[in-house]
Amino acid sequence: MTALTRREAAALMLAAPFAATSTMAAAAPATVMPKALFFDVFGTCVDWRTGVAREAERILKPRGVTLNWLEFADHWRSLYQPSMDEVRTGRRQFVKLDVLHREMLDKTLAKFSVNGVPPDVLADLNLAWHRLDAWPDVPPGFARLGAKFLLAPCSNGNIALMADVARRNKIRWDAILGSDIARDYKPKPNVYLAAVDAFNLTPGECMMVAAHSADLGSAAAQGLRTAHVARPNENGPGTGESAPSVRVDYAASSMEDLATKLGA
Amino acid sequence: MTALTRREAAALMLAAPFAATSTMAAAAPATVMPKALFFDVFGTCVDWRTGVAREAERILKPRGVTLNWLEFADHWRSLYQPSMDEVRTGRRQFVKLDVLHREMLDKTLAKFSVNGVPPDVLADLNLAWHRLDAWPDVPPGFARLGAKFLLAPCSNGNIALMADVARRNKIRWDAILGSDIARDYKPKPNVYLAAVDAFNLTPGECMMVAAHSADLGSAAAQGLRTAHVARPNENGPGTGESAPSVRVDYAASSMEDLATKLGA
Repeated sequence: MTALTRREAAALMLAAPFAATSTMAAAAPATVMPKALFFDVFGTCVDWRTGVAREAERILKPRGVTLNWLEFADHWRSLYQPSMDEVRTGRRQFVKLDVLHREMLDKTLAKFSVNGVPPDVLADLNLAWHRLDAWPDVPPGFARLGAKFLLAPCSNGNIALMADVARRNKIRWDAILGSDIARDYKPKPNVYLAAVDAFNLTPGECMMVAAHSADLGSAAAQGLRTAHVARPNENGPGTGESAPSVRVDYAASSMEDLATKLGA
Repeated sequence: MTALTRREAAALMLAAPFAATSTMAAAAPATVMPKALFFDVFGTCVDWRTGVAREAERILKPRGVTLNWLEFADHWRSLYQPSMDEVRTGRRQFVKLDVLHREMLDKTLAKFSVNGVPPDVLADLNLAWHRLDAWPDVPPGFARLGAKFLLAPCSNGNIALMADVARRNKIRWDAILGSDIARDYKPKPNVYLAAVDAFNLTPGECMMVAAHSADLGSAAAQGLRTAHVARPNENGPGTGESAPSVRVDYAASSMEDLATKLGA
């Protein structure tokens, strides 16, 4: 079999954007195209840390609260995995992430000795997670990726949260998949597989895109393809992954770089 | 309380498009704005009958099949309610509509004595329902409605089907709600209520939009607002509803008319 040049491979992809060819697969496995891209969202697509800190300051500071807003955001987020573990282990029935966030908020306020905030203000503060900004490469990258692939979040965020974030950042999802349709939380296998099934695809026709190697490893274990997007400054300088620590099909420096690597 | 003029009411709506005010509610209940619109899709947004007939002819005619393609589409659709009844009654576990459509296709082919069609061709033919065209007023109407309201299908169609129809017709849904997330079929109450819950809203903050009075009556029974869109020629001349037979909040002649009536 003759190896394809990059130009020939690109031409083939243009001719059949939703169907990888066996020729391409044999020549270069890494260029086999998925049909759908599933995205982790918190950290991978949006900057939760400065967004939550900004919203907490905006809502609580006028009420006379003074504290380190980034530390407040970090503490709130630190309760994320333990909260979901209650559901993952079956100790608790599935509840959507907005419910967990609200409970985590109470604990965070107690930690910072913030008292007497009215319920409607707390409900509004809980929507901080609905008001996060995308990393700058996401809107232009998604515009290119969406022309070639089905796009959906496969996040632990719930449908309302994902819909609000998409509106704010002008993202067009084909559907909102993830925890709410699986009624469980990543990295439980069924969350990835429910997303695959919702699009009538096989795991190998889907690619999980995340800035977190653990998420990609869990997706790969279910047969999905994987792409890592580097977010080295995800939670502050030097806190994120600049490269994957697991084997992936693609490693990209941004969503625009991923679009280029996928020929979109 | 002073009654509002139409101009004043319109100005209020512009100032607070996502929050109906109590003043407005008292002055004119019919102008209280929902936050989300849920759409029936088959018949209300898309022309299933000529689309399915066209796809059946495109795929089967080259194989030497001759029949009345509209009658073929009508028979296929006639098995829709009985198939869903198996799930609604609990006699059968939930399966997505693509699965029911595929079973209904086998029965339809038998009815028309069409034999020997290979499985891959049948799988492709089953995607006829993914390749339906929107009524002409839908794309321009949705562009206006989407600027003011959250938009989601609350259809018995599954996620993959809805996503494909949206791509084909350049519809931007905020999320795909309906049967797949409720794991049951309309008019079961939970299908409407699961859609409401997915957006963190109350039933009164949501409006069901359909060309079928029965669907609207079922939604209203769960507390949703309702809008009827006339499709008098839905399945051929004079076959559809030119007006609702139940009480509704709005009755519109098209999606563009609905946008005008809702101030979008």
